[in-house]
Amino acid sequence: MTEDSVWNDTESIRREDSIMGSSNKDDKGNLGPDPLSPISHHKFPLAVPHNPKDIWKKGGRVFSVLLAINLVLLSCTLVSGGAFEEVHVYDYDVFFMLTIVMVITIAWMLFYLLNTSRHQNAILCKDSHAGPIWLRGGLAFFAILTLVMGVFKTGYYSSFSHCLSAIKITYPIVQALFVIIQTYFLWVSAKDCVHVHLDVTRCGLMLTLTTNLAVWMSAVTDESVHKAQMKLPNSTHRIAGMKAGSTKCPCSGKLCKIFQDGYYWLYPFNIEYSLFASAMVYIMWKNVGRLIDQHTNHIHHLKFKFFKGTYFLGVITGLLIVMLGLAVLIVYEIRVNMHLDSKAKNEALSIYYIFNIICLSLTSLASIGGSIVYRFDKRVMDHDKNPTRTLDVALLMGAALGQYAISYYSIVAIVANKTSRDQISALNLSYSLLMIAQHTFQNIFIIEGLHRQPPEEEDKTDPQQDIYGLTFVNVNAVSLCVPESALPSATPPALAIQSSSEVTQSIKVSKKMHWRRRFLKEISLFLLLCNVILWIMPAFGARPQFDNTQERRFYGDSMWAAIVDICLPFGIFYRMHAVASLLEVYIMS
Amino acid sequence: MTEDSVWNDTESIRREDSIMGSSNKDDKGNLGPDPLSPISHHKFPLAVPHNPKDIWKKGGRVFSVLLAINLVLLSCTLVSGGAFEEVHVYDYDVFFMLTIVMVITIAWMLFYLLNTSRHQNAILCKDSHAGPIWLRGGLAFFAILTLVMGVFKTGYYSSFSHCLSAIKITYPIVQALFVIIQTYFLWVSAKDCVHVHLDVTRCGLMLTLTTNLAVWMSAVTDESVHKAQMKLPNSTHRIAGMKAGSTKCPCSGKLCKIFQDGYYWLYPFNIEYSLFASAMVYIMWKNVGRLIDQHTNHIHHLKFKFFKGTYFLGVITGLLIVMLGLAVLIVYEIRVNMHLDSKAKNEALSIYYIFNIICLSLTSLASIGGSIVYRFDKRVMDHDKNPTRTLDVALLMGAALGQYAISYYSIVAIVANKTSRDQISALNLSYSLLMIAQHTFQNIFIIEGLHRQPPEEEDKTDPQQDIYGLTFVNVNAVSLCVPESALPSATPPALAIQSSSEVTQSIKVSKKMHWRRRFLKEISLFLLLCNVILWIMPAFGARPQFDNTQERRFYGDSMWAAIVDICLPFGIFYRMHAVASLLEVYIMS
Repeated sequence: MTEDSVWNDTESIRREDSIMGSSNKDDKGNLGPDPLSPISHHKFPLAVPHNPKDIWKKGGRVFSVLLAINLVLLSCTLVSGGAFEEVHVYDYDVFFMLTIVMVITIAWMLFYLLNTSRHQNAILCKDSHAGPIWLRGGLAFFAILTLVMGVFKTGYYSSFSHCLSAIKITYPIVQALFVIIQTYFLWVSAKDCVHVHLDVTRCGLMLTLTTNLAVWMSAVTDESVHKAQMKLPNSTHRIAGMKAGSTKCPCSGKLCKIFQDGYYWLYPFNIEYSLFASAMVYIMWKNVGRLIDQHTNHIHHLKFKFFKGTYFLGVITGLLIVMLGLAVLIVYEIRVNMHLDSKAKNEALSIYYIFNIICLSLTSLASIGGSIVYRFDKRVMDHDKNPTRTLDVALLMGAALGQYAISYYSIVAIVANKTSRDQISALNLSYSLLMIAQHTFQNIFIIEGLHRQPPEEEDKTDPQQDIYGLTFVNVNAVSLCVPESALPSATPPALAIQSSSEVTQSIKVSKKMHWRRRFLKEISLFLLLCNVILWIMPAFGARPQFDNTQERRFYGDSMWAAIVDICLPFGIFYRMHAVASLLEVYIMS
Repeated sequence: MTEDSVWNDTESIRREDSIMGSSNKDDKGNLGPDPLSPISHHKFPLAVPHNPKDIWKKGGRVFSVLLAINLVLLSCTLVSGGAFEEVHVYDYDVFFMLTIVMVITIAWMLFYLLNTSRHQNAILCKDSHAGPIWLRGGLAFFAILTLVMGVFKTGYYSSFSHCLSAIKITYPIVQALFVIIQTYFLWVSAKDCVHVHLDVTRCGLMLTLTTNLAVWMSAVTDESVHKAQMKLPNSTHRIAGMKAGSTKCPCSGKLCKIFQDGYYWLYPFNIEYSLFASAMVYIMWKNVGRLIDQHTNHIHHLKFKFFKGTYFLGVITGLLIVMLGLAVLIVYEIRVNMHLDSKAKNEALSIYYIFNIICLSLTSLASIGGSIVYRFDKRVMDHDKNPTRTLDVALLMGAALGQYAISYYSIVAIVANKTSRDQISALNLSYSLLMIAQHTFQNIFIIEGLHRQPPEEEDKTDPQQDIYGLTFVNVNAVSLCVPESALPSATPPALAIQSSSEVTQSIKVSKKMHWRRRFLKEISLFLLLCNVILWIMPAFGARPQFDNTQERRFYGDSMWAAIVDICLPFGIFYRMHAVASLLEVYIMS
């Protein structure tokens, strides 16, 4: 899904090149004369010297994307083939491919780390929007849990190592190595704008991206198959590895059972790890060969105190809902999975739906409220190039499609099925409709929030810094980013002096806006916590889509399982991604 | 797939706003001060007046995209539900929804036409890249054939009108009306950059886009179901309308049979019509509220003579291949569909595969040759904003995914299946591998070609025009596009005078480059014709994927049918789209 956004901003990148002044640098930095930029094309309308780098820039991008497409499709084929009982593709085929790809990726990452540390011009500037500390922190957290999962998985497979192919034990070990190296790699390099070996780096990053996506697909399929096996015993899915265990090598020991349970419970973290890593690698790929105007880049150095300027209303309500949600989830899991009494199951389903309806209604209202407040917000829109934000928005809209699709299928099933209309189907209908509304309103709120300039400038009271601060930062940053010689000496950036009346005005405005910012902060924290619980519920096994028989009967088991298995991973990812974006909105409010 | 490319170029649009000079126009034209553009932000780093339009611009886009997503998903649900026998969603549900949506769209298009003809400032400028004459001509051609299909369809349904719901006869009539009005609408407005009722126009265009996509989905599903029914009689698909005809109301009359056959043969044109219209509407949507620097926009006024500068080599070879392909298709259809003798069928399959392998090898070689020639081409890369090209590239890469996926599934099936290896599977394997290679090389060639500046400037021998021509065009175009008052009077665009030595040099270069351009022209014409035959074969019913039993046995009928039915429409669309793009490459060579 993300591939086609690749093509849209060559123009913006070139525009940034032109921001750097009319430097005719033609080294690895890929700067050339920009005949078509708004600044220069009036000066040289026709005769432009030929720059061969210019041609290869696009070529490298196209080539790396094609590489990625092919690898993703190959793994998609193997993984989806491996998921079906009757198809003679086995999980060890998938593991074998993944192991090879991971080894190559590890080699490339080591090469990259070595190479960038030796070349001193390798990284001319850093994209301060990319890889913020909470994203890297989240990545490290998920990495640790993935490693724990690796231990469980190795333990589980070792319990019957005598009757399994060696690849099944090799795979978790290679994966652990991959996770350690990749986390280190992303921790130190997430902000890099690389300027050496452009094409190799692009291909390497795309390889890393596809490896993560392939691991994600494999994990999601494994998990869906596991869930489907539990809920729909007559389906044609097969649990990877489990089948072999259950027939030839029974997983009978207590330790083996613990390992097995443990690794299934830790799957959601592994899934999130792959997606976080993919997003960060994609941003690195976008930043290859990029030169940045640091004016737009200073804005993230906010000294961010977590609960500054809130009345704890959002946090408290949010935490209450999280607690309640956890209780509901536990009740639901116990009632639905342990007892098979239909009445207890229906009660559990009702509780689950009612909780979700309340939670979705509250978050929808909060999002609408937030959007209305933005209408009156005087902050300037931030339209600068920012690949991180572009990706965030694309992922929010794209991942929401998963939940939208499930909801529409549910709605059609309930509306078309005129015979069986009970309380559960009424609840299910409201739940599906609210799900669509909530995704819509929340996306509008988050997208608006991400496009605002942080209000820091208006807050500053030190006039000295207010007048010169930004412009100085700008000049310094540019000279940090490009070697001195490349700076146009004839045209220094104009230093504009803000009049003191404007400063006074901005302080007044900032006091008026205080309640708005406080309200936005409360709302984003509340939404954040609600999204956490809405992530936990499906990620840790609540599947009302299968427990509620309506859609299964309407579409048939296999079709409904396919719809849910394909769409739900995106729905779950949406929640985690919304949490990250809401944290950003919170900090910028 | 196209939605996520939406978010990437607000920056580019704003850049264009800033190109127009520092106009502070704040009318419907949506121009405001651009504090963050490379030109102006050094002048006003901090104090920027608040512009409410600025906020709503993004809002309107987000809202219209959300509307489109919801409508597309709803129709996707209904259409996919309608395709399965056991799901209680019927084709008349789908037709009912489509009829309503089409009526609304017709009303909106009439409103738009009326509105833009009354408001004199509604269309400030036109995007000359959008809706070139061959695209509009193609649209009109497909529209006429769609209307013929409508006649056949109405005739077919009228044959047993006594036992069908009225909606089935209403639908083709409304569709015919929709096609006529939409074709007129796109013919006159495809190039518009609208500047009134921005939000309404965005939503209206998205509605038109989703209507076309819904019609496309419905047509593709109908056709796939028809094909699958013929090839896999035990599948759970249902032919829309046919079932009712075959049980209650037999289609026994000769006329009825003719109508039925006719309308199935005309389906491919209806499908292409919807896709062409979708692409053009999407470009209109991207152009809403856009102001264009006409410097970049003059380049399409090429006086284009079709076979100028070729030795007819490409055309003759291409036409030979088309003829041969048509013969192969006829033999294949007769042998596979009429006789069910396994040997004759295998022979037909062999012939089909061999022809395709030859054709794909030749086109791969031609694409590689073309890409190599581009390496030595001295023409400047064109990096300006051009939504049409961005969409073209995204669609080429996106649509290729369909054929890639089918090929990978085939390859896995053949490689994994070690038991039955015969001539057919060897041919199938080569065919699938070549399919991947050909798509890759052809995409690289087309994308490189689309990003070149046309060589016209270098060809001109009139020095007067060469020196001043472009710059004058530029100034005139800008003053055409924006009202006089908005032009910055203090900073007139600098007129650069090209030295006469440069003119002489460029003439020399152009003579050297002549053989290259000739070669590129031959190659693009040859590729174009090959893509025509590669479109005709699957579009008019060749389905080796089903006739060759290998993959069906490996994945099972239903899974393989799902893979082919979902992916093949994109593969077919790829061919038609490649034809359009190759025509563009040919003209620009």
